[in-house]
Amino acid sequence: MSNSLYTTSIPVFRQMLGGLSAVLAKAEAHAGAKKIDPNALLQARLYPDMFALLRQVQVASDFAKSVSARLAAAPVPAFEDTEQTFADLQARIAKTLAFIDSLSPAQFEGADTREIVTQAGTPKEKRFSGQSYLLNYGLPHFFFHVTTAYAILRHNGVEVGKKDYIGTY
Amino acid sequence: MSNSLYTTSIPVFRQMLGGLSAVLAKAEAHAGAKKIDPNALLQARLYPDMFALLRQVQVASDFAKSVSARLAAAPVPAFEDTEQTFADLQARIAKTLAFIDSLSPAQFEGADTREIVTQAGTPKEKRFSGQSYLLNYGLPHFFFHVTTAYAILRHNGVEVGKKDYIGTY
Repeated sequence: MSNSLYTTSIPVFRQMLGGLSAVLAKAEAHAGAKKIDPNALLQARLYPDMFALLRQVQVASDFAKSVSARLAAAPVPAFEDTEQTFADLQARIAKTLAFIDSLSPAQFEGADTREIVTQAGTPKEKRFSGQSYLLNYGLPHFFFHVTTAYAILRHNGVEVGKKDYIGTY
Repeated sequence: MSNSLYTTSIPVFRQMLGGLSAVLAKAEAHAGAKKIDPNALLQARLYPDMFALLRQVQVASDFAKSVSARLAAAPVPAFEDTEQTFADLQARIAKTLAFIDSLSPAQFEGADTREIVTQAGTPKEKRFSGQSYLLNYGLPHFFFHVTTAYAILRHNGVEVGKKDYIGTY
């Protein structure tokens, strides 16, 4: 089991979502200490047509839950994207972690060759093996949003370091 | 072999370095078209104590080559960090790709349980299994620098999209 797609996905999502939670906690504390409106950070973005921090966190959560679920052949849980505050984002991350922790390694048996179709039936439909879905698509997208959330906060002067991003393992 | 650490590392590095190369090519073309001094992009950073673009690319290369080499029990090639231009960075990426392409899947046999020591003999020495080294340490650091390079360029108005970041696979 040590090299199954479970090992290559769930612990990585867990570690990085834990790091993201810690980074967001420091951002919220920073806003409090400096009397900054939390929305100045939550709505910050690096360029007008990029997602703001709040959306980056939602999308990181989306990739973690949808990639995990599809690899495990489980239904993808629907989360409503109603978050507005740092506390809401922490709850979103906790909900994501609870979902991925509910999946068992046994559900990932055969996941590497399982066919996974993203946006099935749409013109943008893509077909992957489970392995390619995780390595070529899922992890790159997930890391993109976790890192960009961190970059937005660093750019706004929040004192976080790469150790916070990396999380604990 | 399909789930070995070779599969979980080399093709991912190859894909993302290819994407990074394409992103940098668009940045160089953008500087040319807009008559921007290339150094305005190469030396751009998101915060004063973060690495500039040029250094982000060097460090992404460093993680790709050192993680790959250690997993393969091969010597880590030394690159000198003398790059100054976009062309230099493209050469650095090409050199990194040539190195990781020189490693064979057979060299990764047993890599998941191989002990890997980073900064051996220093106070910051860390000991990993090969699997943990790749998943908990190598990939998170590598993706961090590739994504941050992209974020710096987006922040500076270069017209790249996530498709460019993702690369081809």
